[in-house]
Amino acid sequence: MTTKIDVGILGATGMVGQEFVAALENHPWFRIAWLAASQRSAGKRYRDAAPWRLDRPMPTTVADMVVQRCEPSDSPMLVFSGLDSSVAGDIESDFANAGRTVVSNAKNYRMAEDVPLLIPEINPDHLNLLSQQSKARAWSGKIVTNPNCSTIVMTLALAPLCQFGLEQVMVTTLQAVSGAGYPGVSSLDILGNILPHIPGEESKMEEETQKLLGTVGADGIQPHDVVVSAQTTRVPVLNGHTTLISVKLTETPTEGNIVDAFRAYQGRPQVEELPSAPRHPIVYLTDPDRPQPKYDVNTEGGMSVTVGRLRNCPVLDYKFIALGHNTVRGAAGAAILNAELMKVDDLL
Amino acid sequence: MTTKIDVGILGATGMVGQEFVAALENHPWFRIAWLAASQRSAGKRYRDAAPWRLDRPMPTTVADMVVQRCEPSDSPMLVFSGLDSSVAGDIESDFANAGRTVVSNAKNYRMAEDVPLLIPEINPDHLNLLSQQSKARAWSGKIVTNPNCSTIVMTLALAPLCQFGLEQVMVTTLQAVSGAGYPGVSSLDILGNILPHIPGEESKMEEETQKLLGTVGADGIQPHDVVVSAQTTRVPVLNGHTTLISVKLTETPTEGNIVDAFRAYQGRPQVEELPSAPRHPIVYLTDPDRPQPKYDVNTEGGMSVTVGRLRNCPVLDYKFIALGHNTVRGAAGAAILNAELMKVDDLL
Amino acid sequence: MTTKIDVGILGATGMVGQEFVAALENHPWFRIAWLAASQRSAGKRYRDAAPWRLDRPMPTTVADMVVQRCEPSDSPMLVFSGLDSSVAGDIESDFANAGRTVVSNAKNYRMAEDVPLLIPEINPDHLNLLSQQSKARAWSGKIVTNPNCSTIVMTLALAPLCQFGLEQVMVTTLQAVSGAGYPGVSSLDILGNILPHIPGEESKMEEETQKLLGTVGADGIQPHDVVVSAQTTRVPVLNGHTTLISVKLTETPTEGNIVDAFRAYQGRPQVEELPSAPRHPIVYLTDPDRPQPKYDVNTEGGMSVTVGRLRNCPVLDYKFIALGHNTVRGAAGAAILNAELMKVDDLL
Amino acid sequence: MTTKIDVGILGATGMVGQEFVAALENHPWFRIAWLAASQRSAGKRYRDAAPWRLDRPMPTTVADMVVQRCEPSDSPMLVFSGLDSSVAGDIESDFANAGRTVVSNAKNYRMAEDVPLLIPEINPDHLNLLSQQSKARAWSGKIVTNPNCSTIVMTLALAPLCQFGLEQVMVTTLQAVSGAGYPGVSSLDILGNILPHIPGEESKMEEETQKLLGTVGADGIQPHDVVVSAQTTRVPVLNGHTTLISVKLTETPTEGNIVDAFRAYQGRPQVEELPSAPRHPIVYLTDPDRPQPKYDVNTEGGMSVTVGRLRNCPVLDYKFIALGHNTVRGAAGAAILNAELMKVDDLL
Repeated sequence: MTTKIDVGILGATGMVGQEFVAALENHPWFRIAWLAASQRSAGKRYRDAAPWRLDRPMPTTVADMVVQRCEPSDSPMLVFSGLDSSVAGDIESDFANAGRTVVSNAKNYRMAEDVPLLIPEINPDHLNLLSQQSKARAWSGKIVTNPNCSTIVMTLALAPLCQFGLEQVMVTTLQAVSGAGYPGVSSLDILGNILPHIPGEESKMEEETQKLLGTVGADGIQPHDVVVSAQTTRVPVLNGHTTLISVKLTETPTEGNIVDAFRAYQGRPQVEELPSAPRHPIVYLTDPDRPQPKYDVNTEGGMSVTVGRLRNCPVLDYKFIALGHNTVRGAAGAAILNAELMKVDDLL
Repeated sequence: MTTKIDVGILGATGMVGQEFVAALENHPWFRIAWLAASQRSAGKRYRDAAPWRLDRPMPTTVADMVVQRCEPSDSPMLVFSGLDSSVAGDIESDFANAGRTVVSNAKNYRMAEDVPLLIPEINPDHLNLLSQQSKARAWSGKIVTNPNCSTIVMTLALAPLCQFGLEQVMVTTLQAVSGAGYPGVSSLDILGNILPHIPGEESKMEEETQKLLGTVGADGIQPHDVVVSAQTTRVPVLNGHTTLISVKLTETPTEGNIVDAFRAYQGRPQVEELPSAPRHPIVYLTDPDRPQPKYDVNTEGGMSVTVGRLRNCPVLDYKFIALGHNTVRGAAGAAILNAELMKVDDLL
Repeated sequence: MTTKIDVGILGATGMVGQEFVAALENHPWFRIAWLAASQRSAGKRYRDAAPWRLDRPMPTTVADMVVQRCEPSDSPMLVFSGLDSSVAGDIESDFANAGRTVVSNAKNYRMAEDVPLLIPEINPDHLNLLSQQSKARAWSGKIVTNPNCSTIVMTLALAPLCQFGLEQVMVTTLQAVSGAGYPGVSSLDILGNILPHIPGEESKMEEETQKLLGTVGADGIQPHDVVVSAQTTRVPVLNGHTTLISVKLTETPTEGNIVDAFRAYQGRPQVEELPSAPRHPIVYLTDPDRPQPKYDVNTEGGMSVTVGRLRNCPVLDYKFIALGHNTVRGAAGAAILNAELMKVDDLL
Repeated sequence: MTTKIDVGILGATGMVGQEFVAALENHPWFRIAWLAASQRSAGKRYRDAAPWRLDRPMPTTVADMVVQRCEPSDSPMLVFSGLDSSVAGDIESDFANAGRTVVSNAKNYRMAEDVPLLIPEINPDHLNLLSQQSKARAWSGKIVTNPNCSTIVMTLALAPLCQFGLEQVMVTTLQAVSGAGYPGVSSLDILGNILPHIPGEESKMEEETQKLLGTVGADGIQPHDVVVSAQTTRVPVLNGHTTLISVKLTETPTEGNIVDAFRAYQGRPQVEELPSAPRHPIVYLTDPDRPQPKYDVNTEGGMSVTVGRLRNCPVLDYKFIALGHNTVRGAAGAAILNAELMKVDDLL
């Protein structure tokens, strides 16, 4: 590829926007050409508008760019959206309406029946929904979404089990504070404490998973009939959602069969060698006390989900632990991988 | 009661031992007369032998007591045991053999078929096992145990559901570091991290619960046939085990029925007004983001379990959260409540 | 005292306001009769308006009170102010102008030459400034302030050293997150981290101390000529400011002299036995690893400052550590103690 | 360099030993050929003997090496020592006696008058002491040491100020838990807490600094006459010692002079381009809230000290903050840099 594709970032000053900026800094295919945020930030240099909170320094290439309003007139044809859901609905449709391709991390269109909810390893064919989207909407552009952070971590770990007939899932999450943005969770709420409720999170995990694992046809998505029950908590961890999962399967694989399935798992990102794709979407660890956020969250640059402690579940069939980086694999990295797949499928 | 009963504490310098010391300081029925610990501590004053780590000061009444060896010759007739399981087996049987009543927090005899595993609200009649213990063992004394800390928290929350036919339980725990003793969990392992494995903890929750909820007869305990599946983790919280629970019930109570059952729940400790008994063994909280360790762990002096977020479970029937103080209700307070019940039942 | 004095709280929904509510719940002299906050909260019940973040439950007596606007018309004659400094200036002068006595924790009037900056143990005679305030201002009421939280902790520990000629003070603080209010410090900024800068804090410690220790005369306050140099940091601690202090003295007391001075220290609150007064304003601890927030922050209900590790300083003369509860002794408790002193001095 | 030099690691299973292993994995000059630890570990494979606690994986090249006893017979000629001070004294002299070059992080020989206490940027000429060491001791080998972790961080920040006449230093440290090894600091002691006492740490900072900045002559080291006063604390931070420093200088440089001095500072490691040398030993940050462990601890691979907030000190002359990575620049990286300097000086 000789020329990079210009991309814009909606909501560039927020935490997800910052992750987009960091992840795109040296991207081989995409080049940040345009940053947009709320009216309060517009007109300022990015270095002054964004309360940078990543542990890597702000890329110098963007530091002096002037932040724009979230209006499509001057934007590149491809925009990543890290917008807050309170504004993403209207802004993203404005951009799609103006011919832009919006690759969004916001929740607003995730469950729309004509919008792909995409994890490239799992359901690349859901991009076929775009032709239905094109018919159903007046948009000359399009919107593609990625799931909620905890859904992505869990569903990647569930995907290899679908071959054994995935029927039921019980999941408890221990989610990092970075998932709530900045300033997000107050230190008064989380130092030495557990927050047992993340509004809206459990229903996202229960509903998005069925769409993600569903099959796409002429009439849209036929959701998978897996039943998911989620309990979600916030814990004093900076990065990395830990999910404790039990599953009921139709078939009766051995532990060895399942570990093999985890380790063999790959999808189109690996086949196409997409720039952001991990070599191993799932890394199974055999030590009994892994995965742990401290050691495992950055596996393959944060794009792999680490899994461990597979064992029998006395109530369902098997239980295990899966961990993923919530702002990389669970947010900005997810959207970028989506755009990379769209690129090789000539959808940009 | 005009005269207090002299009691001893085995393992008095450890964290559970320290909790015994603190909880018994102003006890209306019991008086600390004797402290024992390992050979390394024996002969020292308690203030010099115990690395005090409670946030209340060491009672001055014990500070200058000389720590004894764990030998029954000079001990009072009633001893509380906070011994480590590596030594509790032999020492506790020595004391029982020497006619002492051992009320133990150690795991060694919990699952023995002739040893009561007691939560006074739940299974006070399990003390009837003592007559079988007396026949089966050569002991002139006896041993009574309390369950593991996370088991107690969960099982108290499950007990009111037994009336609806408790069939299956899925539980994930987020356990405080104080449950591991001192020095226990290294700061390098838990600052900003989650430990996904607590050796032996899951099987304790799965097995002890069946015994606890079982029925006692002439042949011993008939375990309850509830099936429990546990995933246990350690989190950076000082005190308070948070448990996320889903249950399958035979009957079909409404949410209101279950909340009523939680709130109405009481047992013999409440009827007898035992000194350490909470007025409400279970406190149901209606705020959607409760219970939290920060606010709720000390409810009724740490002897109540707080419960919240009751809602339907798509996989089983209902799910909810229960929180309890692991070193109070889950350890020293549990044993003391056991001894109080034994007192009113003339078993001391 | 047969009848309690009605009091109001300005900024009642904020963290300092919540501390006022909690501390006044069972006060023997004062009764909460009126709560006021910003326009956004006015008209709501307190339970709905205040994001309660104390670890004690909200007093039921105030939970259903309707929050008022910060206007003096219906307020009691005595109001405590926990207002944010962005609004405290105008509101507090409105109240003083309307005849109210404002006992404030806000910084706005602390350094005004006719406003007492009061720590009752240290400078009770600074209340004499009120006659100058009365002449200088058109107010029929009055304003009395307490110092910044870290200043109070440090200055209480310095006060007993004034008898030895206090010349220079170097201080580094490790301040708890509760000092920044709610939501205050973001968890993303403080989990596993240190914030080396608290805007404005260092100059407060350097300037307020001189006024506090100054002498009051007909012309107002003659500041103490002690020179203070402060470095202030925020640390992942919930409650309790730890201050590490070195001092240069004119005289040459021994360590024993200084420890004696710490332990003997008392002032009018102790003599008058004011309800909120600690018996010992300073508690000197001899263990080499004390004070610690975990164990010592609540000494005497959080109203005592604990001091330890007194030793020679190779650069100045002596160094030591002082710890105090920033929202109790350092904020709400400080203001209430001020009002109590004013009560016995017939200034209410 | 065509052939790498074989090196051994004493105390290879401890935290400093693990840091040596990680730092030497891809070293261009050195190759790990031998690992030694206590008798308890000897004979085991390294993967089984070392409780690996770094966030990078254990290098596969060492995982299967068999740990040896700390005896010089089979060891390489160059050994790094991460031994605990309780055993380092005898073992290191045994190795020196047997002709080995011991580059040690242990404290035992640091203050010996014939042993270099080395920071290559500051006092490379202190290696001249080795000829005196050779005369004074019966050793055919030699010992070179690096300072205590907090001393290194502070002294690197002080070194550029020596040109202005460094007279007095007041320092308070906020030290990370990794400085205490594994298991080291108990989570019960540090979660949400501050430990105000690190045994022996303050005197190390006060004494080692004078030797480090001293001049070497025919009679040994003439210590610098700077007077240092230290207060050291442990905080809930994983990596990175934050030091808050005030200095008194003979001359009167401007702030700009000092910032220039920080930024211009370099020494022989930079001139020689030693493999572990940072390009900038000191990185001065202009943001008012920096340095912070979260963002700055890994600057130049953890080998740079970051400095910020330079401003006037009302008591001494200037105050500022310096931060460094305690296990990299403050321990293993320090020793390796020492060995690199010795290599170019033909002292290996």
